[in-house]
Amino acid sequence: MNEQQSPTNDARPSGATIRQRVFGEANGQPTAQRDSVLEPFFQTALDHVWGGVWNRPGLELKYRSLVVVSVLAATGHREELKTHLRGALHLGWTVDELREALLQIAGYAGFSAAHEALDVLSEIARSSE
Amino acid sequence: MNEQQSPTNDARPSGATIRQRVFGEANGQPTAQRDSVLEPFFQTALDHVWGGVWNRPGLELKYRSLVVVSVLAATGHREELKTHLRGALHLGWTVDELREALLQIAGYAGFSAAHEALDVLSEIARSSE
Amino acid sequence: MNEQQSPTNDARPSGATIRQRVFGEANGQPTAQRDSVLEPFFQTALDHVWGGVWNRPGLELKYRSLVVVSVLAATGHREELKTHLRGALHLGWTVDELREALLQIAGYAGFSAAHEALDVLSEIARSSE
Amino acid sequence: MNEQQSPTNDARPSGATIRQRVFGEANGQPTAQRDSVLEPFFQTALDHVWGGVWNRPGLELKYRSLVVVSVLAATGHREELKTHLRGALHLGWTVDELREALLQIAGYAGFSAAHEALDVLSEIARSSE
Amino acid sequence: MNEQQSPTNDARPSGATIRQRVFGEANGQPTAQRDSVLEPFFQTALDHVWGGVWNRPGLELKYRSLVVVSVLAATGHREELKTHLRGALHLGWTVDELREALLQIAGYAGFSAAHEALDVLSEIARSSE
Amino acid sequence: MNEQQSPTNDARPSGATIRQRVFGEANGQPTAQRDSVLEPFFQTALDHVWGGVWNRPGLELKYRSLVVVSVLAATGHREELKTHLRGALHLGWTVDELREALLQIAGYAGFSAAHEALDVLSEIARSSE
Repeated sequence: MNEQQSPTNDARPSGATIRQRVFGEANGQPTAQRDSVLEPFFQTALDHVWGGVWNRPGLELKYRSLVVVSVLAATGHREELKTHLRGALHLGWTVDELREALLQIAGYAGFSAAHEALDVLSEIARSSE
Repeated sequence: MNEQQSPTNDARPSGATIRQRVFGEANGQPTAQRDSVLEPFFQTALDHVWGGVWNRPGLELKYRSLVVVSVLAATGHREELKTHLRGALHLGWTVDELREALLQIAGYAGFSAAHEALDVLSEIARSSE
Repeated sequence: MNEQQSPTNDARPSGATIRQRVFGEANGQPTAQRDSVLEPFFQTALDHVWGGVWNRPGLELKYRSLVVVSVLAATGHREELKTHLRGALHLGWTVDELREALLQIAGYAGFSAAHEALDVLSEIARSSE
Repeated sequence: MNEQQSPTNDARPSGATIRQRVFGEANGQPTAQRDSVLEPFFQTALDHVWGGVWNRPGLELKYRSLVVVSVLAATGHREELKTHLRGALHLGWTVDELREALLQIAGYAGFSAAHEALDVLSEIARSSE
Repeated sequence: MNEQQSPTNDARPSGATIRQRVFGEANGQPTAQRDSVLEPFFQTALDHVWGGVWNRPGLELKYRSLVVVSVLAATGHREELKTHLRGALHLGWTVDELREALLQIAGYAGFSAAHEALDVLSEIARSSE
Repeated sequence: MNEQQSPTNDARPSGATIRQRVFGEANGQPTAQRDSVLEPFFQTALDHVWGGVWNRPGLELKYRSLVVVSVLAATGHREELKTHLRGALHLGWTVDELREALLQIAGYAGFSAAHEALDVLSEIARSSE
């Protein structure tokens, strides 16, 4: 039980709490909880990404979200990018700012990666009009 | 001359100007201008990354810098990461905030990529103490 | 004819034989043999991956399969991952063990890569129930 | 206005001109110009990839095309690969030569990346029969 | 405190315990604990990779180690690969088996990635002779 | 012995022959033959990359070399890139053409990958002056 005695950890919100702050009430719970392959993954992600990294002090959630969007766009994980672009919009970034962020990665991860990421943002923007 | 007639482009600062804003006076010029292999690259980067992406309106330089740092950390380009971490510090991010940004990528690009990026930040932090 | 004189190679099973051991009788032959673009690829893979790497002595097929599944999950090649997860099951790994293997990569290739790989495993697990 | 005074740049064809040479008349214009997320990307790519890299002297378009196809196949950007395989055919490469180029990457980016790229080429070859 | 109430988690060994089992007594503690940039990373990795993934039931440590070695070799993280190859040897894999595992990745992540990984293994093998 | 009966394979030069054509007499043999970790890798690469892919008919060695250089530059394998840039020069590409090829990848694999590759080419160019 290594985390329990950690005083800094005690003060940090749970992964589930942080996840809800990022995605909003409606997206507060992952959807595939009944799947015996995916359920342990979701629980691990909740405990150890949301509850291990996202909930750290020292950088605003809005900026953490921009970091995650940049990484997912550069590495081509489209489904997760879609989810996190929605989180970024929920945290206050605008579609135009996110378009610029994705254009910015073009110089560093290539225009093809940027193109794919902007396709995802375009789809989100059109579906929410 | 496709760019010349573009009215939006006319109002944008040059790549060299933006590069200096990001890295500061001392780092305003790339260093290997005499190399016939590298010189065309530096000029192209200045014209088409600094003068094509970084100088766009719609997202602050400070946030563009965070995007670039995240992409370079995720994709393992250490030398460029070092340069851009210095730019990020110059634009107002603190060492602690950048540490948190690099820790944040651990969940998405893996802890090994984060470790390598934090080694670079640690080196910068120690050299500037 | 560099391979013919090689005494160690002579003792090794052919690529086709090994491929059948990994995937089972039903999957013993690739399916697109008539395609003039893909046929040379399948033949090259059979001769030089199955007959050049997989058929080497010194590591059990079951462990070679785990190595391949890990690499494909980390690098996001979903279709090949699906094929090789089936091979891994045929060689004796259980769905639960493979779920743990894919969860293990989360820390090193990121939770997004793990998520995508687990989606593939989940699909296989549900289709074979 | 950094590019305007550059004498070498003045002599270079515009990005739009080069793009048309690579893809042919019918593909001379990107299709999603009305999308406020994608339009700035297409303009930036036209000005700064087509008008910044592709239009440089010193290497034939046909060879630049082979470089781009190789990079996109190795990094798994399928949609862009499809577009650029069509460009490569337009510039004079044959289906058989491109098949060999994609088989060549198998040794360096892995047989899975080659397989995915050859699937794209196979689709193009079958659709144009 | 999301982890505290989890009954399955209660039974799992701590990250520090697992890390010591993998690397052995001498490598039981990370070395840069005093570095304010790296220390939070090591603690996070201990709590959330070692204590979140490695300590899960359902797959032997020896096989988890093979998965990690495969991922690090495929993605080119040499320093971490070196550390984890040592862990793999400590857990009972032989140099010859690990050589075969790294040769196996050649077909899937490319011979260049395999070459770099085998250079690391070769260095370890020679230093321990 | 799957390859022995193949009539097309019989007519193809051995891997060792092709390797020597690409790198020239002086580089005709890999250097670390005595290393029990690396020797099987070099033999496998000779038999199955040089003797399985490079020796295929249908695309000139010079173009295969350009494909390999592009892939290695895009994926950041510097040591192999250095070796293959030397092969490309031996096969008739000029330093200026290779500089343009590496600049071309900037738009698709990012300017950071291009920068690293051009550093390698610059080093080769300076050492051969």
